[in-house]
Amino acid sequence: MSEFITINDVGPRDGLQNQSHILTVEQRLQLIAALVAAGIPAIEVGSFVSPKAVPAMAGTDSVFSRLLGSSVVDDSLEKASGRQIEKRLSALVANRKGYELAKATGLRVVNLPIAASNSMNEANIRKTNAQAMVLSLELISAGCSDDVDTVPYIATAWHCPFEGLIDETVVIDMAEQFLSAGASRVVIADTIGAANPAEVSSLFKKLTTEFGDKALGAHFHDTRGFGIANAYAAVETGIRYFDGSIAGLGGCPFAPGATGNVATEDLAVLFSSMGFTTGIDMNQLCVAAELAIELTQTNAGGSSLPWLKRQLDKSFL
Amino acid sequence: MSEFITINDVGPRDGLQNQSHILTVEQRLQLIAALVAAGIPAIEVGSFVSPKAVPAMAGTDSVFSRLLGSSVVDDSLEKASGRQIEKRLSALVANRKGYELAKATGLRVVNLPIAASNSMNEANIRKTNAQAMVLSLELISAGCSDDVDTVPYIATAWHCPFEGLIDETVVIDMAEQFLSAGASRVVIADTIGAANPAEVSSLFKKLTTEFGDKALGAHFHDTRGFGIANAYAAVETGIRYFDGSIAGLGGCPFAPGATGNVATEDLAVLFSSMGFTTGIDMNQLCVAAELAIELTQTNAGGSSLPWLKRQLDKSFL
Repeated sequence: MSEFITINDVGPRDGLQNQSHILTVEQRLQLIAALVAAGIPAIEVGSFVSPKAVPAMAGTDSVFSRLLGSSVVDDSLEKASGRQIEKRLSALVANRKGYELAKATGLRVVNLPIAASNSMNEANIRKTNAQAMVLSLELISAGCSDDVDTVPYIATAWHCPFEGLIDETVVIDMAEQFLSAGASRVVIADTIGAANPAEVSSLFKKLTTEFGDKALGAHFHDTRGFGIANAYAAVETGIRYFDGSIAGLGGCPFAPGATGNVATEDLAVLFSSMGFTTGIDMNQLCVAAELAIELTQTNAGGSSLPWLKRQLDKSFL
Repeated sequence: MSEFITINDVGPRDGLQNQSHILTVEQRLQLIAALVAAGIPAIEVGSFVSPKAVPAMAGTDSVFSRLLGSSVVDDSLEKASGRQIEKRLSALVANRKGYELAKATGLRVVNLPIAASNSMNEANIRKTNAQAMVLSLELISAGCSDDVDTVPYIATAWHCPFEGLIDETVVIDMAEQFLSAGASRVVIADTIGAANPAEVSSLFKKLTTEFGDKALGAHFHDTRGFGIANAYAAVETGIRYFDGSIAGLGGCPFAPGATGNVATEDLAVLFSSMGFTTGIDMNQLCVAAELAIELTQTNAGGSSLPWLKRQLDKSFL
């Protein structure tokens, strides 16, 4: 059997929070159900942050209570991933209060955003680097006690919209601290889609050499059209865990210049084409992408979507 | 000074021949003038093929006589490239008659399409592989006598829409024959946009080892969203000559499933970001891409175009 690459769909969180059209809880559940039906093994369902700052994520507690009450997804996600559903659905939390709210829903994976630069931390979570580091380490420690997986996201890991190029050693040092403290995985994020594949290759070579590929993940945006090239560069260094966003929905409301995340369908097509297993049903993935476009009323969609649509009536992959 | 990568814009030929809206000779000249103004060092201006088969390319002789009469582009292309304009403008020819018509205009670079598979040659130029090979070698020989650079394009070099995966040795053998016969360069084309970056890397490593990077070029399509990833993979093997199409216009009327060429603006953004010199003015390139979209009445445009547009008022690169 060929090697497995995990795609974590962050569309229901990173995607939806950046759309002008705000979805209802029912619509969010509909989108998540479509992703589950497509066999996506990991999904970032929402965030526990201030609804004033991110209105699209209000009601994430209701989304989780419905999901973990299993009325929406039954056990297909569990079957697809071979792991408990609580371990495959995640939420982003930005502080202790968010962490507690998330934990109370019964979910068991939280993502912790922290930028590699001061300016971005201040813009994104209103903290200095040092304060953000203390908070992240505190939440990682809490996660260890509570049997909650914690996944720090090192945002703007290559380029900061305010400070420019980030020194690789800053990211490597942060990753080291997180993993030593007990983080399940560290995701390296090109939040504004500014890294080129040579830069991606360089940093991930150093990180995988230091920490092994199992401890790492990659998160790319398509701002300059480099998303798939960056994913390829990361795969070549051994990375096997990638964030994508269905239909390429996404961006970052607090990072100037950030546009859509790399599309889950583009990642799935790339990895399948390269002979990896993703567990994803391409026909159902296409259905999910079209639903995402319909619900958000955007013209989004990965570069491969027109091709995928033409395959809908064929048997392929 | 950083290393130079040549982008050859094939939009006026490969792009326009696939649009439902057919441009007038004046409009084609307008588009070419915009590409020249953007500093594009090489342009495939049109083709000398049957106007019945490819109606959009009727009048290519008029386009060339206007261009080489220099009323449209004056000497800016010559200045930009440091070479005679006749050596920077090319045309596609599919047979001896086309070659003679092209030569008569005064141009000095012709591109010769030949597929790596029988079925594609029959669909594209109505010849078997053997017949196509004889014709190509005859035209390369004529080019040597006439001081006309000949550039064979090995089409569907990785995947054929009819026959599937192509054996790498077929392409290497063809390239060897062309270069031995005196071809100026061999361009390896993923005509239907089916090759993944690992396949691109594999074939180009073998080709560059055998023939050196100066004798080679790469031509990618974005069908599955792999265009930029494939360009990156090729750059990593040493390739420094790439076809792009302004605004990602393109496809192939005779290859089922082929969609837009990789966008010139995406290539330019990638190469600049990686520290290469392209000679291209990004602001003017953006103007050219918007003109291409306006003239063809399409929704085309590279993945990086929205980002490029936002840079228009800034000083960058």
